[in-house]
Order: sequence, then structure tokens, then C-alpha cells
Amino acid sequence: MKPLSGRVTSLDVAALAGVSQSAVSRAFTEGSSISEAKRKAILDAALKLNYVPNSIASSLTTRRTNMVAVILGNLDNPFYVQVLKALITRLQARGVQILTFTVKNGSNSDDALMRVLRYQVDGIILTSAQLSTRMTGICHDRGIPIVLFNRYIPGSSASGVRCDNAAGGRLMAEALLGAGARSFALLKGDPNGTTSQDRQRGFTDCLLERGIPPADILELEGQSTYDGGHAATLRAFLDERHPIPDAIFGINDIMAMGAMDALRGEMGVKIPADLMVGGFDNIDEADRWPYRLTTVRQPVDEMTEEALNLLDLDNPGAAIQPGIDIKVPGRIVWRSTIPRPVDL
Amino acid sequence: MKPLSGRVTSLDVAALAGVSQSAVSRAFTEGSSISEAKRKAILDAALKLNYVPNSIASSLTTRRTNMVAVILGNLDNPFYVQVLKALITRLQARGVQILTFTVKNGSNSDDALMRVLRYQVDGIILTSAQLSTRMTGICHDRGIPIVLFNRYIPGSSASGVRCDNAAGGRLMAEALLGAGARSFALLKGDPNGTTSQDRQRGFTDCLLERGIPPADILELEGQSTYDGGHAATLRAFLDERHPIPDAIFGINDIMAMGAMDALRGEMGVKIPADLMVGGFDNIDEADRWPYRLTTVRQPVDEMTEEALNLLDLDNPGAAIQPGIDIKVPGRIVWRSTIPRPVDL
Repeated sequence: MKPLSGRVTSLDVAALAGVSQSAVSRAFTEGSSISEAKRKAILDAALKLNYVPNSIASSLTTRRTNMVAVILGNLDNPFYVQVLKALITRLQARGVQILTFTVKNGSNSDDALMRVLRYQVDGIILTSAQLSTRMTGICHDRGIPIVLFNRYIPGSSASGVRCDNAAGGRLMAEALLGAGARSFALLKGDPNGTTSQDRQRGFTDCLLERGIPPADILELEGQSTYDGGHAATLRAFLDERHPIPDAIFGINDIMAMGAMDALRGEMGVKIPADLMVGGFDNIDEADRWPYRLTTVRQPVDEMTEEALNLLDLDNPGAAIQPGIDIKVPGRIVWRSTIPRPVDL
Repeated sequence: MKPLSGRVTSLDVAALAGVSQSAVSRAFTEGSSISEAKRKAILDAALKLNYVPNSIASSLTTRRTNMVAVILGNLDNPFYVQVLKALITRLQARGVQILTFTVKNGSNSDDALMRVLRYQVDGIILTSAQLSTRMTGICHDRGIPIVLFNRYIPGSSASGVRCDNAAGGRLMAEALLGAGARSFALLKGDPNGTTSQDRQRGFTDCLLERGIPPADILELEGQSTYDGGHAATLRAFLDERHPIPDAIFGINDIMAMGAMDALRGEMGVKIPADLMVGGFDNIDEADRWPYRLTTVRQPVDEMTEEALNLLDLDNPGAAIQPGIDIKVPGRIVWRSTIPRPVDL
């Protein structure tokens, strides 16, 4: 056990630095009013005495822990690593600590939230998984805002920010149609995720409106991963002998990359000469030489900023605004996997 | 502010479930002695009343928060994403929460540790950055073990686990020499990191011992990233017109991948016909069709397991064992970027 007695307190630090106990407290509170010279003298005294303030104890009176929980799904998708990096950067800069959880794609995150609540976090960002209405209610009753990142839950009172996924799916359909594609395959992700569903719906609706018969839109289950996209492509075109379509749309970049490697590496297909490929997300990897993938960019920085605005950490007393649904538009990033229409 | 009064307590839950208050406490403690039926009745009552136990408050008496801090460097390197995933999986399975911090490569992590200490974590895993002897002392004095992951700090009393990086560098030198390489380039990473230094030293020592003149070992600064490896390769062989060597060793896979894309994409170099490439880490991406990189595998699962053994979370009262340095051997994974010697 750590020693309970004999531990240095803020009184000892105050005595050594020749200041009041409340000055010691202010020196350790972000944004509080204290001169830089006084703060430095206090931090020096604290270091000499090995004193560290106890945020856990003080949270019992302030009822703020300065911790935010980030609940992540699939870290195999580099897009969510990029989101995690962006959230960490912004939260750390504000002096906020991050409790990280992962939950399997498509599974319910109620258990993770129950664990998070025991730590009295100031807010929750959910980048994946399902969430019950009941659990949202429990969090909101306790004054803890939940922000959904790149998803929404129909009927939920949780607010969120997402890319306009349906419109992005339409952009990709237009790009492929414009390049002359008339038969398609679609690599789907998590069947319970609204992100995947919306992209698929926007893409398919646009194709159907433009007269493509449903029989010419082949749906494949890519499980949102590189390996899933790779395996689904081989299964469809090597094992099941479906004819190679004019174009494949990966609901996310990492599945599109898996499909590209399967097509070129195992089947000698030339991209885009034999078949065009489109993605969604614009992860860093999509820009690398072996891929140069034409994709729909999600504006991660703008989305993380909106997510933190919704969390509203600066106004802990404010009522939680339920059901706000912010949609940020995506845009096509043209590279080498879809011939770009000549600008007339 | 969250309401201070009128909040449901464990007494209310005990009354509704018809059990004692201590039974409620046991129901919410991992591994405590309580029948499954009783636990279920208590959890049902808690859900009905929206009751969540306060781990923060109970940590003041137990002096255990059940939180571990993971301090990460560069999440741009997929190897450390893989490590984070492995740590999250193992810690979550034990009911331990993870506080995540990132620190710039090569910078000092004392500030991050000061922040971590205020949350009274039960242990700290450091996968990057420097650490002062003073800060190690502060943590150990407070009974908080620090485990260094894939690095060591000379003279530090912190324990750690790492791949035998010097021996891995030697393995790669032997592989390239065996395939006939006689001139070399080396993509270095973080100059302050022992990981990069050890791999470089093992590699270079082996080459010198085997009669390669120092002038035939070109050192390039790749900054441990894809972009850094890509740019350093272009700078050396396009701008500065160094002759293309027989082989390049990327101190990590992600730099080797950047070099491969620069060589093939911008300079039309054929791999391995014109030049061989070796990596280190064996990240998932190294196995993909565009790369098929021959590399030194780091056994991440074995290393994370050893790291958690060193943390020894089950024995909070135990004295911290200082200065344990566990080295796990790496091994060559043969793929396409180095011709494999015929097994005679």
C-alpha cells in the first residue's frame, strides 16, 4: 500500500514557497489567476517536496474530473487512428485527460459506458458501436454529455457530428458514372453502422436514378477492414466467378485498398484501365504510391472541433442540448484510380 | 452542476434488492465473492434506480483507482497502434481503465507523468519519449510502477521489456550480406531513442566485422515516419546524387515502406533486382501486396504480456523491482524484398 500518513500536503508546499494554501491550489489549476513568478516558485517548491496535487480528491468537491472518455470501435481502420490522434491533440492541449475504451464494431457500448460512469467523466465521445436510449438517458440524467462521432442513432437524444455520408456516396457514384462505369460492386462495412448504410444508400440511390439496373450493382461484405475487403474481392471474382464490373466502391478506403491488392496481386487486373476503384475517408495511406486512390475526403479536423464544441466542457453547468445532428460535407479527392472527366 | 443531493446511494440499491450494503459493494467489485444470482438481483436494482458506484470516491479509501496510464509517442507508426491495441485488449479484459497520453518522439515525458500522477494511477506504461531519473524516483516513492515498453533508459531504475534490437539489427545485416549486398544505406529514426540506436549499432557492427568499409554505409535521417523515410530517400538519391547502394535497411517498417515507394514511384528502381530493402517490426502493412517486406518481427503479444507482468497489478503492496530489463528475441520474416539464400 502507498503510505497514508507522512505524505506532503499543499500546506507544506505553501510554507516552503512562502505563500497561502489557496495560492498553491491556484498554481495547479489551469486558467486560474496567479502571477507567472508566483506559480513558478510554487511549482519549484512542489518539485523539491515531491508534492503532486490529488485531482481525484478535489473532483469530489468540484464534481469535475477533467477526464473525457473516448469509446473507439475498430482501430484496424486507420481513419479511427487519425480521429484518435486529433482528439488526443485537442484534448491534451486543454489539459483534459482521455480515458480510452474499445468496443467491437456493431456491438453495444452500454457496458463500456457503465464502466466509464464509475469514473465520473465530464463527457463521452463515441466513435463506434451501438448505444441504447436507456444508457443515453442515464448519462444525461447525470449531466454527462455524449457526443456521437461520425454516426447517429435514430431516435436517440445524444448529439453528434458526422460527414454527410449519403451525399458523399452520391459524389462517388457521379464520379464513376462520369468516367463511364456502368456496372458496379460495392464493399459494405458494419451492417449495423449508419455510416456504412448511408454511404451505400447515397451511392445506390444515385445509380438507380441514373438508370443502372439493380442487377448491375453487386454487394459484397467487406467487414470494414483491409483483410475483409481483400477476401471479399477474391471470393466474388475468383471463387464465385462473378464478372469483373467496371468499378468497385469501397465504403471506406482501407477496404478499397484491400480490394486493389487482391485485384492486382492475385488476378493481374489493371487499375483503372480494367476496373476503377473509389474509396471514402481519405486516410493518409490512400495517397501513397501503390494506391493513389480517388476518394471522398472526411474533414477530420473540422469534425473533431465540432465534436468538442458539442461536449461544451467549458460550461459544465449548462443543460445538455439533445439531438443536435451536425453534418459536414465531404468532397472528392481526385487521384489515379478513376479517370478524371475533362473539364469542359 | 450535477446534483449533490438526492442522488441514489448503495443503501437504496440494497433496500430494493433486499440485501446488505456490503453485498452491493461486492457486486460491483471484480473477483469478489458473491453468488451470480445475488449479483444479478443487485445489478437489476441498480439499473432500475440509475445507480452507478463511484470508483473515484472509493479510490480514496482503497488508494487504487484501477487506472493505468499509457504514454505513447508516435501514433503515425502503425507498430505503436498495434501495441496500443494489444494493451487495451489485455487491460480491458482485466477491468482496468486506460488513461492515454501522447508525447512527441524524443521529448521528455516528465510533464505528462506529472499530470498522470494527479490521477493516482496504479501504474504507467511508457512506449516512447525520455524520462528523467528524478521523475522515476517520484513515481516509485509513491508506489507507482513504471514499465518501459521497447526502450530502456541507461541508469534508470524503471523496469522494461524490449525486443533485442541490437541482435535484430545483426540478423538483418546477415540477411543482406547473405543475399550478396556489399553497399548499404540505413534509415535512422529518433536519434534519442535507444530502440533506433540499438538496431543501428547491431546492423553496423555486424557489417564492419564482416569487412564492409564505413564509407559504404550511408546514414539517412528518416524521422521514424513514412513521410520521413520517403523524403530522406529522395533527397539522398535524387538531389544529392549518392549512388544507389545494394541495400537499404529501414530501422522500422514504415520508413522502409516510404523508401520503397520513393524508389519505385519516383525513380523506377526495381526491388529487389536493383536494390534490396529490409525493415524492422513486422507491422501488418509490411505483408501487403505492394510491399511484401522482409523484416525483423517483434513479438508484440509476448512483449505486452511481459509488460503487464512487470506492472504486477495484482500485488499493489509489493515492493517495486527496479531495473529489470527483459529482452525478447526478434526473428527474420522472409518475404520478397531480399532474395532468400538457398537452404544448402
